[in-house]
Amino acid sequence: MGLLKETLQFIEPLNKEAVKKAWDRLDSLSKPIGSLGELENIIAKMAGITGNIHNKINKKNVVIMCSDNGVVEENVSNCPKSVTATVTNNFTKKITGVYVLSKFSGSDITVVDVGIDADLNNPKVINKKIAYGTMNMMKGPAMTREQTIKAIEVGIETVDNLVLDGYDLLGTGEMGVGNTATSAAILSVFSGLEVEESVGKGSGITEEQFINKKRVIKKSIEVNKPDKNDVIDVISKVGGFDIAGLCGCFLAAAKNRVPIVIDGFIASAAALCAYKLNPLVIGYIFASHLSAEPGADFVMKEIGLKPMLNLNMRLGEGSGCPLAFNIIEAALYTMDNMGTFEDAKLDSKKYIDIRENPLEIL
Amino acid sequence: MGLLKETLQFIEPLNKEAVKKAWDRLDSLSKPIGSLGELENIIAKMAGITGNIHNKINKKNVVIMCSDNGVVEENVSNCPKSVTATVTNNFTKKITGVYVLSKFSGSDITVVDVGIDADLNNPKVINKKIAYGTMNMMKGPAMTREQTIKAIEVGIETVDNLVLDGYDLLGTGEMGVGNTATSAAILSVFSGLEVEESVGKGSGITEEQFINKKRVIKKSIEVNKPDKNDVIDVISKVGGFDIAGLCGCFLAAAKNRVPIVIDGFIASAAALCAYKLNPLVIGYIFASHLSAEPGADFVMKEIGLKPMLNLNMRLGEGSGCPLAFNIIEAALYTMDNMGTFEDAKLDSKKYIDIRENPLEIL
Repeated sequence: MGLLKETLQFIEPLNKEAVKKAWDRLDSLSKPIGSLGELENIIAKMAGITGNIHNKINKKNVVIMCSDNGVVEENVSNCPKSVTATVTNNFTKKITGVYVLSKFSGSDITVVDVGIDADLNNPKVINKKIAYGTMNMMKGPAMTREQTIKAIEVGIETVDNLVLDGYDLLGTGEMGVGNTATSAAILSVFSGLEVEESVGKGSGITEEQFINKKRVIKKSIEVNKPDKNDVIDVISKVGGFDIAGLCGCFLAAAKNRVPIVIDGFIASAAALCAYKLNPLVIGYIFASHLSAEPGADFVMKEIGLKPMLNLNMRLGEGSGCPLAFNIIEAALYTMDNMGTFEDAKLDSKKYIDIRENPLEIL
Repeated sequence: MGLLKETLQFIEPLNKEAVKKAWDRLDSLSKPIGSLGELENIIAKMAGITGNIHNKINKKNVVIMCSDNGVVEENVSNCPKSVTATVTNNFTKKITGVYVLSKFSGSDITVVDVGIDADLNNPKVINKKIAYGTMNMMKGPAMTREQTIKAIEVGIETVDNLVLDGYDLLGTGEMGVGNTATSAAILSVFSGLEVEESVGKGSGITEEQFINKKRVIKKSIEVNKPDKNDVIDVISKVGGFDIAGLCGCFLAAAKNRVPIVIDGFIASAAALCAYKLNPLVIGYIFASHLSAEPGADFVMKEIGLKPMLNLNMRLGEGSGCPLAFNIIEAALYTMDNMGTFEDAKLDSKKYIDIRENPLEIL
């Protein structure tokens, strides 16, 4: 049995009993019932993930999948393709946004070459190159089915190894010129959304280039006719190695019962793919921020997650994850350190439960 | 000249030159222009506040103004008035939400009794009691003009002292049973919003009590006829000591050129009062999260601030501030540690500026 198939089979639902116990504990803490809002949902979800009411994060890591996209030759980005290799190397030089934010929050990063169109020869980048970039999706499938499954399995292996190394909170990042185009294509196929509603200006393009980008995405979908009921078909035809790799990261995190955080639009598209492969993965995923790319909001509603942060970021790289890590850790610390109604000499019966959507079962 | 008058006169605009220099530096960092979104606005605003491009926070403090509201006798809350004194004491016992979240983020708290209806005899609570709670605003003004000015000055003095002690990032919290009712009343007067749109269920009340709460707020405005062009009149008639105290905190932070963070709905109402007294204060204020109370969103739009966090919290106490402190510090750290386009061997000209609202002048 292949690694992907096995991973999909081993994903289990959250531990309902632990979720319930977490809510009982939360409702005994000296505060109006539910008044810590999403912090309480985070705490309850973490209990469901690990099976323990009290949780403490030991090691954090943002996995960054890096690869090139053949469709860049259609001028969907202002950046030349070579930027993918340059920025990937920069991750290891400690000067990029995601590195700096990760360092600030005590997180490590893991950089994976899953299909960059260059030989990096950088020992700090894990070489899992499947090909020198994908094919141009406007002319045919970006990848073969076999390549797509292989890229998903690169993500699974990467997370499996991080879990073995003791990492217990993961983030998802990416680098790949052209990957807001592939992400928007995937979103449009799954959602039926018009390309106009799913696509944004990525790292920055002119109005004229924006019109072209939308045309290219539409044409790519027309040419390939991806089957929305066959996730591998969709990723193969209009996705990329980075998205496939991140999809594997989400699946493996769920299999290993380790929480994993979505960064921006590309990671959102990958999470949507993982969700379509096995809806149970959502129990293990947290959304960090709402990306400025227009399709991101749609994905969040589709997978039923609510981003914690509202910072209008659109850097990608995984840069929103370290900020979310801090909120998750703050929530867990609160669970462990707040006093109960009894400690506080307050009467819990005075507080009426006006919660709208407490997390119950996932 | 009184302390309030003097404070209002000494508030100056942000340092435009420093803001411009901060943007120049930000735009030289190796990322698509503006792609760190609100983190960049935070960095630029901090430069305008301190006059320096690089800023590092040394000491953080959440100021918690605690007082009672006479209107509680109209059954606007499920909690008995005594909860104000109990929770105020609990702040010093290290078991409340704001204490725990502050500790997690390396922040101190300052607890001020500005008008609790009890003698606390707690050396860890600063005793600035103006009266044993306000009067019932449904029957007449909650406070006299003199009491209101005195309460604002308590806030000013508190922040002046914290600045002398070296605190360079402040938060605002409160404790006072009934204070979502007074905050909603203030908001309705200033905005012309129907009470139905500004008021929420606070710490938790039944539908029946909610109908009563709205009736009480409407009646209080009818009875007192506050003059919306006279801020002191509005706070005196339908506000409270806590809101007045927090209003003073915002004014003093601006006077001292120290950044200050809004927590929830009550602090938002206080910030609105400060803004009406001197619009320049907004340059010194950051919004942490969007409170679950319905009026909070309106205040944010009115004062032109965008909350960083979207956590559906409604605890108050200042509990959102420590989470925002972390984001502010992460932003400042990023400014200091990211590489430039030159370091990154990237061509900045490849990135087109698609920012919508970069902070320029405040």
